[in-house]
Amino acid sequence: MLMNTRLRLARRPRGEAVNDDFTITQEPQPLPSAGEVLVRAEYISIDPSVRTHLNAGQSYRAMVGIGDVVDVPVAGEVVASGHPGFAAGDKVTGMLGTQEYGLAQGDLLTKADLSIAPLPTWLGGLGLTGLTAFFGLDEVGKPKLGETVVVTAASGAVGSVAGQLARIKGARAVGVCGSDEKCRWLTGELGFDAALNYRSPDFYGELKAATPDRIDVVFDNVGGPLLDTIFRRLGMRGRIIVCGATSQYNENEIYGPKNYLALATLRARMEGFIIFDYENRYAAARQEMAGWMKEGRLRCRENIIDGTIADYPSVLHRLYQGESIGKTVMRVTPTD
Amino acid sequence: MLMNTRLRLARRPRGEAVNDDFTITQEPQPLPSAGEVLVRAEYISIDPSVRTHLNAGQSYRAMVGIGDVVDVPVAGEVVASGHPGFAAGDKVTGMLGTQEYGLAQGDLLTKADLSIAPLPTWLGGLGLTGLTAFFGLDEVGKPKLGETVVVTAASGAVGSVAGQLARIKGARAVGVCGSDEKCRWLTGELGFDAALNYRSPDFYGELKAATPDRIDVVFDNVGGPLLDTIFRRLGMRGRIIVCGATSQYNENEIYGPKNYLALATLRARMEGFIIFDYENRYAAARQEMAGWMKEGRLRCRENIIDGTIADYPSVLHRLYQGESIGKTVMRVTPTD
Repeated sequence: MLMNTRLRLARRPRGEAVNDDFTITQEPQPLPSAGEVLVRAEYISIDPSVRTHLNAGQSYRAMVGIGDVVDVPVAGEVVASGHPGFAAGDKVTGMLGTQEYGLAQGDLLTKADLSIAPLPTWLGGLGLTGLTAFFGLDEVGKPKLGETVVVTAASGAVGSVAGQLARIKGARAVGVCGSDEKCRWLTGELGFDAALNYRSPDFYGELKAATPDRIDVVFDNVGGPLLDTIFRRLGMRGRIIVCGATSQYNENEIYGPKNYLALATLRARMEGFIIFDYENRYAAARQEMAGWMKEGRLRCRENIIDGTIADYPSVLHRLYQGESIGKTVMRVTPTD
Repeated sequence: MLMNTRLRLARRPRGEAVNDDFTITQEPQPLPSAGEVLVRAEYISIDPSVRTHLNAGQSYRAMVGIGDVVDVPVAGEVVASGHPGFAAGDKVTGMLGTQEYGLAQGDLLTKADLSIAPLPTWLGGLGLTGLTAFFGLDEVGKPKLGETVVVTAASGAVGSVAGQLARIKGARAVGVCGSDEKCRWLTGELGFDAALNYRSPDFYGELKAATPDRIDVVFDNVGGPLLDTIFRRLGMRGRIIVCGATSQYNENEIYGPKNYLALATLRARMEGFIIFDYENRYAAARQEMAGWMKEGRLRCRENIIDGTIADYPSVLHRLYQGESIGKTVMRVTPTD
């Protein structure tokens, strides 16, 4: 019998998720019913936000239940199809979870055209990550020509795309990240107008120098004290896109932005969004971004880490170390 | 020579402003030049937000300088006029400062029509206070028919008007305040749909019961932990109007809203505004509110405290004690 290695949530993590929060099971591979497709995982998306779905309570989507496979984006190859639109050998992406073989309704899968970009990019720039940057900027930030957009976690999966999209829309992109090497990548490879290392002793001085007309849009992925520092440089009618808070996901007590009263004095706003609201526009956005990739205006980089399904927690841990550049994906090493 | 008692800022307060932060001076009364008007103060507006203007730095308007009279709204009587639109005996309001006699450009004064409302109301419901409620709701909150609006410091000058305006616009108004007596005033006299005492041991349970469809709009005047509690009950696409943070003005370290990440999961926003942006619409808004007052749909109450100019700091202190209902004004007792 063909087997499937699956990683299931065993208990609610406290602070950062650790190996003991999960169990590994070996189960028979399912067979696709009519309309369903069975996919062998080649790459699993490693997202900091997954941590928020491991908590009890509710969020913008169902939390992962105790005993459940963790619901994450996966890219892989169709091995059996009960859907007329898919055949064995097709490359696809979808929410297939932390397992070697995932079953999904074909209508919920996306075909990955490898002539546009390699498979891992379909989890990054052309995946939910890139779409998050696209719709956050388009729907909430709405940068205008010549405005200044500051992106936090700018060398990360979402941030690196957000900054490039800001430039494509005619804004100035200033990236904030955690190392000089990352800064060099943002300005040297991706064309950011400026990049700042938030660990610099004079970070605020450098931020002022890089934003002479103050900040119109903040694409915030980090939260915490860094967001408070950036608040000090926000301009009139500034918009803070609340995309995430990587600095806070593993904290039991969240750091609230102490400088939020500047929203009043600046007539500014902080606003959130949920990518799933724009599902009917994913295909159009992907097509637009694929065009910019072909023109060389949008560049993506993946940080590929090999591991078995059982290694998922430790690969997630490496992401939180903040060393990675671009989109982190785990290339799935077969268990046997 | 006719004299003028003036209260000037002597030093930057730490925490709450105290008497020693100010000095009292006796100076000759000025004479109005062409276009100017001299006004004898009858009522001085007592506003919690004044504290923020006593700090160093900058805000949405110039900070009060060391040695300056504190720039506050005043209602009084014209004693001498160099402006053709004003004559001795006219009742007016304007930013005339903490002094017995204030000089201002006539174009910056508002005539108070006592047939519409008594003079103190021209600092409250028909003053900057009422206009703040009007434009905050109209421009940022935009409550729709049947939506639920929660107002903090609901028995205060801004909040009591905001809740009534929400009802006039067809929304449900839920007031949050600090005593059962205030709650009774909100539901009994002002027609709020519900009123909650945030000191109640089961405040969150009561908030849930009073907002069965969650909260669409928060008109927040308080900030701090109360705002965090309300955040837990915010609904999809909720709007938090950042009007003020009375709980925080005297704090040296501001409490940031720890639950702000709910903005993302709820596709919600927090947004500030500055009343001075709408100056060219003040007259129209006053006229609309005066109409609702005549119809009995908008009720105002003033908490009048007698005091000399030198008593201003202690009257401000009493406001922060949170005992007052409605708009607090100081009725100016002449010094000699």
